[in-house]
Amino acid sequence: MNTPKENHYTLLHTDGLARRGSFHTVHGSFDTPNFMPVGTRASVKGVDIERLKELGTQITLVNTYHLWLRPGPELIERYGGIHSFCGWQGPILSDSGGFQIFSLQGIRKLSEEGVEFASHIDGVKMFLTPEKSIEIQESLGVDIAMVLDECPPGDWPHDKTARSLEMTHRWAKRSLDTRKKESTRVFGITQGGCYADLRKTSAEALGELPFDGYAIGGLSVGEPKPQMYEVLAYHPQQLPQDHIRYLMGVGTPEDIVEAVHKGVDLFDCVMPTRSGRFGRAFVSGEEVFLNIKNAKHREDKAPLDSQCDCLACRNYSRAYIHHLFRVEEMLGPQLLSIHNLTHYLSLMAQIRSEIEGGAYESFYQEEKRRWREREV
Amino acid sequence: MNTPKENHYTLLHTDGLARRGSFHTVHGSFDTPNFMPVGTRASVKGVDIERLKELGTQITLVNTYHLWLRPGPELIERYGGIHSFCGWQGPILSDSGGFQIFSLQGIRKLSEEGVEFASHIDGVKMFLTPEKSIEIQESLGVDIAMVLDECPPGDWPHDKTARSLEMTHRWAKRSLDTRKKESTRVFGITQGGCYADLRKTSAEALGELPFDGYAIGGLSVGEPKPQMYEVLAYHPQQLPQDHIRYLMGVGTPEDIVEAVHKGVDLFDCVMPTRSGRFGRAFVSGEEVFLNIKNAKHREDKAPLDSQCDCLACRNYSRAYIHHLFRVEEMLGPQLLSIHNLTHYLSLMAQIRSEIEGGAYESFYQEEKRRWREREV
Repeated sequence: MNTPKENHYTLLHTDGLARRGSFHTVHGSFDTPNFMPVGTRASVKGVDIERLKELGTQITLVNTYHLWLRPGPELIERYGGIHSFCGWQGPILSDSGGFQIFSLQGIRKLSEEGVEFASHIDGVKMFLTPEKSIEIQESLGVDIAMVLDECPPGDWPHDKTARSLEMTHRWAKRSLDTRKKESTRVFGITQGGCYADLRKTSAEALGELPFDGYAIGGLSVGEPKPQMYEVLAYHPQQLPQDHIRYLMGVGTPEDIVEAVHKGVDLFDCVMPTRSGRFGRAFVSGEEVFLNIKNAKHREDKAPLDSQCDCLACRNYSRAYIHHLFRVEEMLGPQLLSIHNLTHYLSLMAQIRSEIEGGAYESFYQEEKRRWREREV
Repeated sequence: MNTPKENHYTLLHTDGLARRGSFHTVHGSFDTPNFMPVGTRASVKGVDIERLKELGTQITLVNTYHLWLRPGPELIERYGGIHSFCGWQGPILSDSGGFQIFSLQGIRKLSEEGVEFASHIDGVKMFLTPEKSIEIQESLGVDIAMVLDECPPGDWPHDKTARSLEMTHRWAKRSLDTRKKESTRVFGITQGGCYADLRKTSAEALGELPFDGYAIGGLSVGEPKPQMYEVLAYHPQQLPQDHIRYLMGVGTPEDIVEAVHKGVDLFDCVMPTRSGRFGRAFVSGEEVFLNIKNAKHREDKAPLDSQCDCLACRNYSRAYIHHLFRVEEMLGPQLLSIHNLTHYLSLMAQIRSEIEGGAYESFYQEEKRRWREREV
């Protein structure tokens, strides 16, 4: 199905390159810029859906690779779809499964047809094609499906990256042609590493296809941060102005503030939950972030962040959460995951508000200063 | 401090031997019969205090042994006490530390003075006396402190158990004499294994001391269940009628229903949280309990318990929770812990209501039938 498309993105307001918009799915709309908590196996680690709602989540992400393996898309389809299965009734986006296969599992064999790999659970040989990825995602019943792409390492030479990119574009077309459900929004993904000409080629090639949104792939995959920021400086503007732009797998609050400044609308990252499980908390003010395991928090009666009203900050002190991590109580990771997600989603709400008020540039400058001074 | 005592327990109503009462502390009162969720290291595993309140918790328990080691009673005292530290502002009871030392760590040396043991964290030699245990508990600032007792294995012969019991009684007296704070309620603990004469001796000896409550120790420590029920059939009635009776470390919902029937008022057990973490759920109706990891739940859209309105049951199905356990998502143990605690505390509320209505005997018979048929 590759019919002339309806645009599900509404651009409401701009402030410089920053955009305030809204994206519509059959499970409701979400405001942009926005951030998607990552629910790898259809669960945001340690956070139940009532808390997810409480902290302002509008859309979540699930991983096709993991759900393909367990419990399998057939089971979820029989169940009535991913929303019924996991209880989250708002919009859900799934990745293609490619990132896990390329970056984590090791490829067995890559061809024009698709990618052969071994299951991390039992080593069984599996084969993923662009068609198969979309079929799985439509079986899951997600609102937004991502195309399968090849995600090459940032240090590949130009010619090799260019050849990979051409296949990624052919895969994108095959993905779009596979869509069967009217309700599935499909996003294309640009690649091209940090090569400006390849990024332009990628944006143009995908922009000619009737995608419902455009994602920037292949960033935050190990390249130095200045290189990522260099690509962000020009690439979002190469993508269609009238469609949503999604920067995949990024990043720190600073990265998000940077990317919004360059015209990006949507983000996901495991950072708030993963770094939360390891004791790192993002906080407001000049402190920026902290490691709760640090001995200096041992008797600190202050909350993680005096500006925050999340479950962790309204009930507990740094000293208590330090204790939880020290004795390895599971409540510690739970609380920091909730706190960090609250921090991210509050940041997104503030970003939207600053754009609406035409004040994003000064907010951006202040956030950049705050992070720069912390990193010194 | 061993002054003539005020009685903090109010007996409101009896129904057969079952008692409906209330116990008063400076952090508020709790209704009896009641159950205390176990917060070993000042955290009920996986359950934040907002959820604890939501599911009807009135009093929680912490473990002196674990808090003695980390973060240490001095830190908690400097902090302002255990209530401020962990955020739970209702009544808190602590055990003496003895059970962990006798049952888990292995005793290095036991004498009239106290017990020498090795820390499970770094093997450091430590020494706990009846006086030290009360001092630690008063540093923690708990509402109810338990005396240090020797908890002998159920298979000890009569003479050895009797000698142990005599020392336990001397320790009880020393514990009571150590109390410094007016606000600390101190409970004595009876021992005597499954020997009826020793249990009587223990109840009488402790009953002569001005304790604020009386606990039954040394049951559910590996003896056959009929033996425990045999002791329950006579022992609670040997304890002072006008004081609260606490059966330590017990047990299944069936055990609780049984013990209330014989006049017990207070319970604690790791079972709802621990078995929850391993996938066992207690449910109403003829099913009684289930293992959510069982393949038969793989596609079951029903909640754990259609009679339950806990976080798990109002949002998720058995199929989804089965999936969470299968892929080892931490949300699975969190949800079953909350569900099981809700089941226990709802049971306690129903028990109180049945006693008030004079209907405890028929409730008891029905619960016994339900469990008996499930066990066949």
